[in-house]
Amino acid sequence: MTLAILRSLPRVKVVGYTHRTATRRRARQLAVATEVASEITESVSRADLVVVATPVCSFDEIFGAIADALPVGCIVTDVGSTKVLAHRWATKRLPKTAYYAGSHPIAGSEQRGVEFARDDLFEQTTCILTTTKQTNRKAVQTLRRFWSILGCSVKLMTPAEHDRIFANISHLPHIMAAALMNANDVEELKLASQGFIDTSRVASGPANIWADVLLTNANNTIRGIDRITAELAKLKTAIKAQNKRQIEKLLEKARDKRRALINYKMKKRELIP
Amino acid sequence: MTLAILRSLPRVKVVGYTHRTATRRRARQLAVATEVASEITESVSRADLVVVATPVCSFDEIFGAIADALPVGCIVTDVGSTKVLAHRWATKRLPKTAYYAGSHPIAGSEQRGVEFARDDLFEQTTCILTTTKQTNRKAVQTLRRFWSILGCSVKLMTPAEHDRIFANISHLPHIMAAALMNANDVEELKLASQGFIDTSRVASGPANIWADVLLTNANNTIRGIDRITAELAKLKTAIKAQNKRQIEKLLEKARDKRRALINYKMKKRELIP
Repeated sequence: MTLAILRSLPRVKVVGYTHRTATRRRARQLAVATEVASEITESVSRADLVVVATPVCSFDEIFGAIADALPVGCIVTDVGSTKVLAHRWATKRLPKTAYYAGSHPIAGSEQRGVEFARDDLFEQTTCILTTTKQTNRKAVQTLRRFWSILGCSVKLMTPAEHDRIFANISHLPHIMAAALMNANDVEELKLASQGFIDTSRVASGPANIWADVLLTNANNTIRGIDRITAELAKLKTAIKAQNKRQIEKLLEKARDKRRALINYKMKKRELIP
Repeated sequence: MTLAILRSLPRVKVVGYTHRTATRRRARQLAVATEVASEITESVSRADLVVVATPVCSFDEIFGAIADALPVGCIVTDVGSTKVLAHRWATKRLPKTAYYAGSHPIAGSEQRGVEFARDDLFEQTTCILTTTKQTNRKAVQTLRRFWSILGCSVKLMTPAEHDRIFANISHLPHIMAAALMNANDVEELKLASQGFIDTSRVASGPANIWADVLLTNANNTIRGIDRITAELAKLKTAIKAQNKRQIEKLLEKARDKRRALINYKMKKRELIP
């Protein structure tokens, strides 16, 4: 995040803060920011823009901790993967003189830590900005420019719309990958080939980050688990009945839907053939 | 398959057969075999080795169709993804003068058709040979050499062991990918990023091939679906209860298991970091 800002906005001063002393030290050694503050209030006290990049459940506390230190007119955003609660906590905790909108840059990998920092993290990616009727328009324009300069194509959504869509495209795949790993014995997996490796990849993501994502998007995620469970039951019933036509129908439907998705992504140049 | 044999065993005569006239014509145009026979019996009548590469459920009929045309001492194998029924059908249909063992080269992609034929398909892959107490030892030695020459590292298993393991590492990921696609609306998936694309990739495999795989490995697959459903229910319960510690525990378990798998694969040089 900070490296991407330093590269794309070289005259901007990037002040980093993290609560762990050792991580602050490493961040200074690796020079991932112009400056690494030792206090959270110090890190935001002269900021034009504050980007919170911590697990979602910490936003409530962090917004509270920075509220009094924010300069008048400061824009606050976050890069969390769920948005309804982030907006709620911002409304509750941040002063009226600071302007909040949510950001969700769809970037990153299952790797985590300051060692994996990359300055091209956002190139060719999409960033969702979440806004409500209460959101300050100028703040949205500034954030739109900020993410564009970092290389993102920016899309606007409401927090509710965001959380519904991301439950389906992101949180459910994570849950399925985790369930696939947990349902199997590692000894039995030694012959696993690329199919298994790909299907389970996202399960290597950080557990604490993902726990917060699932907790803060509980209803959408639970509805998704119910839909997946129903689809698994359909396949099970067809297999149990040795109903070849029905199994083929279900697999063809899945194949057709994925083909439509891949075609769309290729047309948008978001996937390379 | 045939291209790989032609490249690795240039002095071997490869006779192809497929029941579709148009595919035979294309196979001749693309020269994927030394010769393409117009009758199935003709394709095997002078063979030392017969490789059946059709959907699993067709083996019963195909073994029956070739039985009388097989030369004495001919070795018969198949490249299907399930093995218990393949062995049962071979025992029932093939003459005692022909020697059967199952093969499962773990290669190929979700693409299919003679246009996607590749002569390096088996390089750096594993091929499982399935054998029972009845299997002819010399036939196993010949098949072992055959697959080794094509570039495979060969492993022996019983058909039952094979089908149990492949239900877990291959058939279940396919079912999950299909369920994930079918549980979602394509319109809602337009923002899907690499995580979703990877998790769902195997759902693009051919429906008729996979229907046969699931039908012929029904019990193992159903047991797998039940285990996955139980794991999904555990996650759902923890999310519903907003039990952060329990969600983290389940996600950490999945992450640890996948790390162990990836480490094993890297040590065996089956995955490049």
